[in-house]
Parts: sequence; structure tokens; C-alpha cells
Amino acid sequence: MSGSAVSSASAAGEQLASGNEVQDVTMKVLAAENDDHGGVIVEMKEAMDSEAFVSLLRASIAHWRQQGKWGVWIKMPIELVNLVEAAVKEGFWYHHAERKYLMLVHWIPEGPNTIPPNATHRVGVGAFVLNEKGEMLVVQEKSGQLRGTGIWKFPTGVVEEGEDICDAAVREVKEETGIDSKFVEVLAFRQSHKSFFEKSDLFFVCMLQPLSFDIQKQESEIEAAQWMPIEEYAAQPFVQKHGLLRYLMDVCLAKKDGDYSGFTLVSTTFSFSNEESYLYLNGGCLKSQ
Amino acid sequence: MSGSAVSSASAAGEQLASGNEVQDVTMKVLAAENDDHGGVIVEMKEAMDSEAFVSLLRASIAHWRQQGKWGVWIKMPIELVNLVEAAVKEGFWYHHAERKYLMLVHWIPEGPNTIPPNATHRVGVGAFVLNEKGEMLVVQEKSGQLRGTGIWKFPTGVVEEGEDICDAAVREVKEETGIDSKFVEVLAFRQSHKSFFEKSDLFFVCMLQPLSFDIQKQESEIEAAQWMPIEEYAAQPFVQKHGLLRYLMDVCLAKKDGDYSGFTLVSTTFSFSNEESYLYLNGGCLKSQ
Repeated sequence: MSGSAVSSASAAGEQLASGNEVQDVTMKVLAAENDDHGGVIVEMKEAMDSEAFVSLLRASIAHWRQQGKWGVWIKMPIELVNLVEAAVKEGFWYHHAERKYLMLVHWIPEGPNTIPPNATHRVGVGAFVLNEKGEMLVVQEKSGQLRGTGIWKFPTGVVEEGEDICDAAVREVKEETGIDSKFVEVLAFRQSHKSFFEKSDLFFVCMLQPLSFDIQKQESEIEAAQWMPIEEYAAQPFVQKHGLLRYLMDVCLAKKDGDYSGFTLVSTTFSFSNEESYLYLNGGCLKSQ
Repeated sequence: MSGSAVSSASAAGEQLASGNEVQDVTMKVLAAENDDHGGVIVEMKEAMDSEAFVSLLRASIAHWRQQGKWGVWIKMPIELVNLVEAAVKEGFWYHHAERKYLMLVHWIPEGPNTIPPNATHRVGVGAFVLNEKGEMLVVQEKSGQLRGTGIWKFPTGVVEEGEDICDAAVREVKEETGIDSKFVEVLAFRQSHKSFFEKSDLFFVCMLQPLSFDIQKQESEIEAAQWMPIEEYAAQPFVQKHGLLRYLMDVCLAKKDGDYSGFTLVSTTFSFSNEESYLYLNGGCLKSQ
């Protein structure tokens, strides 16, 4: 990506034969990178007024159309909010947004677009941390719906951008209770909808093996934390009352007795990018592992 | 939600005792609904110019501050893009966006906000559909990275907004091949990062039981579709070359031989909302099922 948002293009000259009726003109267009799907990505950086932006944008789209480009992405930092209205009036729509930027997109060809969908799910983790005495790590939270109820629960949290599920569970346990631990298995997961406006949730219950035992609770979020016999946790009326928690307790009790296998972790690579990613599967069933 | 974006509030009168120095004034504020976390949600509907919007917004925030509100959400349809710059200048930032709207958010109290994070993951499905002859359903796609390579693959697709993973797998198989099927298990899943700008992917491999057998391929996306002996699929050099696909093939072969258990489905309810959601777990290990 160029540091400047503007570059020069010989718009006519690139694709048309130079004849008597065709003249080369050099004009300013927005600097863009190609994406992997026949489109271009513009990362706006420089402040400009919206009239200047509109002329640049029109020239750029004419240029990209000549080049046969399909999708046009503009990543617009929130500081350049003055340009959003102009982009929308030129035919861009919202694709996604984060705190500091808005991603706008436009489709040049005729016909339906193949713009990929936005992210639809938040991902959470709950940690079942069982020590050798058959006690599990439980907490009471200072905020949220269980605040002040005296109900003990699994440590839970949200998977951060770019974080692996297995790492998120270990991190949350460390943050909330000070306990070091090692990921063992995903025991179960739940999908729920409309948890946050139109977005869905995927919640993974992970079994972790504790590597330390002295609890140091997080002051900001955690009211209390302790090791508790698993049967005592299971006997809480709140757990008994809720189908989901009863099922999870059945899983945890079976796991404690060695009768349950969840999904273990395999690091593997895929395809074109050759990037490593984690595959979760029932490794105990595979002879080759 | 009121149909009008504007309502009247007796801003001073609601919370202050009426004394000699305090006067009740009625002023216009934006119509808002309370959320479950001490904040308010404004759904903008009416076109207005940005000066009028700024005065309304300032009066509204003063009003909500008096009421002790925390987060303020504004759902701004793309038609009202002319108001986005004004909202940002009044201290709002972007939370998320979809094609037709931008969700802006502002935090009234001093101190760190507890605004929940945006969705971080797209969710995909792949379908392992095995018939009684030991043949699996495979396709060649008309677009994407495998286009024109002659490589046979599982039917795959993206989980739509609000859709369950189990339903998405059945839907994709029906759309791409015309085959009716029934969800059996999640065999494995993969998490990968930066698949789409900063967003991550969760990809669930589902086993489905076919309920019909005559293939009618989707013209728009599918080049070819057929039932193929599982060993023939596995022998493709592309499958052999990639760690991820080799692992998945081991899983599918073990499943075919009855040696593998993935996660089955339990419909259950949780907690306050009492809404049904699906829990995926190794049901074969639980005696109570």
C-alpha cells in the first residue's frame, strides 16, 4: 500500500490502441492494491474535502472499470468521516465497521455481486478446570446477569480478534483467577442467535488442566473464586434448573470419570496460503494420531 | 420503538425537585428504547438535516445523562448517511455495519466503557454425505480457487445470519446437488484467522445422512456433482498434499467404519431468555441420552 492515497494513471492509454481518435491522458486516481478476487482495495489515509474526493473517486472507478475490476473496497478511517456521504452517493454501501474505520464496498460489473458476507458470530469460551482432587475452578462475577446472586460459574470470556479458542480459554482463566493451565479438549459448544442485535454467538466449553493452584482473583471483574467439588457445583439450583447447564454438567461428570471424549487439537496447514490453523476433532478415535 | 425519531421529554423536571431556582422545560429528544445493560437504542428513521440532528442529539445526551444512562446506540440507515459525520463529531464511534445501516455508539459515563465487542467470525460448513454403498457426495465448483482444476470436494458454504450450523449444511447440500439429507454429527471444526481482512473463520465439517439419491446440480455455482467411492476422493493428490484434508479424510474413513464419534445435537434452553439453542456434544458418551 502506498503512503499516498493518490497515484497517477494513464487511463486511456493502458488498454486502448493509440490511434487518431484516441488520446492518452494522465489523470489522478486513488492508490489501490489488488485483492485476490479481481477487485481492488483502497486504504484512505489523507484528509481531503469531499469535492476533491468525489472527482478522484469517479476517475478511479472509470480507470478500474477499464481494467475489468469487480469489487472496490474503501477502508475509511473514522477521522475521514466527512467522505462517507460522498462515497455512498457514488454507489458504495457499508460492508463492515470497527471502532476506527468503516469498510465501504462497490461492485463495478453489471449483474449480481460476489462480495463475501460480513462476520456473523461472536465467539465465547467457558473453562472447565479440574484439579486432581476432583475440584473445579469456579467464580462469581461482579457484573452481568448473575451479579449478586451468589451463583458459582465456570470462568468465561470472549475470544479476541485473531485469537485461537484454546488460547482464549487459557487466557481468561489466568486473568480471572491467576491459575496457569493447559488446553485439553473442547467438550461441547453451543450456537445461539440474536445475542447481540442480529449477530449470533458460538460458545465453546473447554477442558483445561491446571498447572498452578493458588488463586489470585481479578479485582475488577471477579467477586470471588475458589476450587469447588464438582458435585457441589452441580447441586446448585441454578444449574439444576437450566437444561444447558445440566447437559454440560453431565459432560463434565462423565469426563471426570474418564468416560467422555471431546475434540482435541491438531495444528495443520491448508491449501494455497499454507498458513497454520487449528483443527479440532475427536483424536482418541484416530489410530494415526 | 416509536415510529417517530423524536419525542418530548421534560428534561429537568424528571429528576430535580421543583424549587425556585429550577424550572421545568420541555424539549425535543430522540425517541429511544432502553437496552438490557443500562443504555438506550435509537433507531433513526426520519430524514433531517444535520444541524437539526445535532441539536436533537445534544439535548438527548443531556437527557440520558440525567437519567444515568451508559451506552447510547444509534442505528443509522444508509439513507441517512448525511448524519454520520455529525454523530462522530458529537463523540460517537463505529460499532458495526451491515449493507443497509451503520451502528454508532457513544459512552456517557466517565471511565472505561463496557460496550460489547463486534462479531469476529464468519462461519462455514462442509458436508460429508455418505450413502449406503460407501460413496460420498462430491462437487466441482465453477468459481473459487479450485475452479477449472478438476478437483472434487465436499459441498461447502457459508452459514447465513441467524442460521443453525446443522441447517446450513443440509441447505447447502440441497442447493448445490438437489440431495435431501439429515444432519448426523459435527465431525470436526477448524478455526483460521485473517481470512477476510481482520476477521476469522470457523469451519464445521458435518456428517449428513442422504435421504434422496438423484443428483440435480445447481447450474450457477456447480460445474459437476457425483457420488464417488470415498477411497477415490481420498486418493486425489490435492487431498493427499494438504494436512487438513488428510486429517479430515482420516476422520471420514474412521466414521465410515463406525470407529469415530463426533458431536451430536441437543436442543436445550438457557437461563433468562429461555430461548432454545443447540448444544453440540459427544452424545454417545452420555448415559442419560
